[in-house]
Amino acid sequence: MHKHATFLPSLSLRIDLAMDARIGPGKIELLEAIEACGSISAAGRAIDMSYKRAWDLVDEINHICGRKAVDRKIGGKSGGGSVLTPFGVSLVSRYRKIERIAARAVRQDLLQLQSDIEPVKKSRAGKRTSF
Amino acid sequence: MHKHATFLPSLSLRIDLAMDARIGPGKIELLEAIEACGSISAAGRAIDMSYKRAWDLVDEINHICGRKAVDRKIGGKSGGGSVLTPFGVSLVSRYRKIERIAARAVRQDLLQLQSDIEPVKKSRAGKRTSF
Repeated sequence: MHKHATFLPSLSLRIDLAMDARIGPGKIELLEAIEACGSISAAGRAIDMSYKRAWDLVDEINHICGRKAVDRKIGGKSGGGSVLTPFGVSLVSRYRKIERIAARAVRQDLLQLQSDIEPVKKSRAGKRTSF
Repeated sequence: MHKHATFLPSLSLRIDLAMDARIGPGKIELLEAIEACGSISAAGRAIDMSYKRAWDLVDEINHICGRKAVDRKIGGKSGGGSVLTPFGVSLVSRYRKIERIAARAVRQDLLQLQSDIEPVKKSRAGKRTSF
């Protein structure tokens, strides 16, 4: 959900908690969609992710963290949905905080990187370099 | 090339320069391997990447940046190799600098995230959560 209409460079962060235990923008976006939609299936549809992949990722997140970030919704008239646990909410919030801190810290270097690239890009618009 | 024997959380950064124009750890690792190995094919082998994928990624990097990060090696007795251009060297260097700055900035939050996760993980060692 971080599309840019303008071409300001931005960061996506993947947090490597351990070997093969990664939390990145895809998992966080899924958790946010579950919070917004109230079910894993609806969240998957909302972010154009297959039913199976959404469920697999939720299982992976719960496994990586050793505790549930997503749980079944108990009661309520709709039933059968899922919600973020308090831990899930804090995980999303902490990831987004880390993202903001990192983005602020590297802002000048990202702009410098952009300026290294853009002047040449503009003068060769659309031309693919190859060799 | 950032494997961790211990389980300190770490960051991997993807820089989104524009829509579908991304520089991340895979491309940077490939550039570093080209610098070390002196050819795209040898670099691919060194980081367990197929010949085709390595060449495709180099083409994509050059395209994204609008200028060559990798170029043919001119002369030399081996011939046929590739080198990073001065721009390619600066791209790798800037990416690694951004990575260091971001890692330093978010260190405390990463440790906090780890402490949110680990106590529970230890008490359920090896048990996969599901629902």
